[in-house]
Amino acid sequence: MRIETLARDREVSIVWRPFLLGPIFKKNGWSTSPFNLYQAKGSYMLRDMERLCEGYGLPFSLPVPFPQQSLLAARVAHAGRDQSWIGAFTRAVFIAEFAQGLDISDEALMADLLLEAGAPAKSTLAAAHSRETKIGLRAAVTDAEERGIFGAPSFVLADGELYWGDDRLEHAIEAAARLSG
Amino acid sequence: MRIETLARDREVSIVWRPFLLGPIFKKNGWSTSPFNLYQAKGSYMLRDMERLCEGYGLPFSLPVPFPQQSLLAARVAHAGRDQSWIGAFTRAVFIAEFAQGLDISDEALMADLLLEAGAPAKSTLAAAHSRETKIGLRAAVTDAEERGIFGAPSFVLADGELYWGDDRLEHAIEAAARLSG
Repeated sequence: MRIETLARDREVSIVWRPFLLGPIFKKNGWSTSPFNLYQAKGSYMLRDMERLCEGYGLPFSLPVPFPQQSLLAARVAHAGRDQSWIGAFTRAVFIAEFAQGLDISDEALMADLLLEAGAPAKSTLAAAHSRETKIGLRAAVTDAEERGIFGAPSFVLADGELYWGDDRLEHAIEAAARLSG
Repeated sequence: MRIETLARDREVSIVWRPFLLGPIFKKNGWSTSPFNLYQAKGSYMLRDMERLCEGYGLPFSLPVPFPQQSLLAARVAHAGRDQSWIGAFTRAVFIAEFAQGLDISDEALMADLLLEAGAPAKSTLAAAHSRETKIGLRAAVTDAEERGIFGAPSFVLADGELYWGDDRLEHAIEAAARLSG
């Protein structure tokens, strides 16, 4: 929700690299989100997100069930990762899932969100279902792991420095601005 | 390292409640710190702490082995939890462990740190070894769990709101100031 505005202000460029967290969690022995597996921490994280979103003026409600099936959305994002609309599309998906309680595995919803973001819905959905995208997204998961990524959102700088989570977004942008400046 | 200064600035009072994380981790099925069990996240957290401490102007180096045996330090802190020197003593323990690489299970070191913090070392160490302290610290762990605590540092407000980690210290202090204001 915040990265494009902050990056623009500091003249930092973004390369979007969607990936799946599920396969990375599985290697930790987790069949679902750790927020579901570790109850005290999960309850806290929910409250923390509520408070943060209130501070940011963002609506928030945890989808039921959580986590949702995000494979289709991730494939669409992978297909459109280098397009100008990828930021707007990503925000639209997160609003649909975490504010409106919509089912992001629904193909018709994806088409709506693509159009809303100014993207060609039909050709992008076709690309999302292509063999190239399926293989490409799997490679993106491996790439994420190789960069030391274990959660989302993660921000990797040109020098390889990894920053994890909304809490570190400003740090990542400042460090990126120093790198390029 | 930071809480007493921030709390004083906002006229927020602190009640220190030392507890042990080990028994709480054990209930999650963890025999040691999750930073040791989950390697990618552990490596990241170490780098994150290095960067944060650099930003705060604090020396940092992970003790070997990590985690250290903190039972003695926790018992001393429990015995002195309501004393005026508890903040200074706590900072001294963290500097010894995370900056100087000293063994905080060493009784002579504890005595030095108590004196450094302006505390009566001999009587406090005797109190730390008392049955009352051993039982009291165990009760403090149960109390922490009942408050929903799963990590450290944690900050619980008078209304029960829980904040976890250095990242949320400012939020906790601001919310506490609003509660009492």
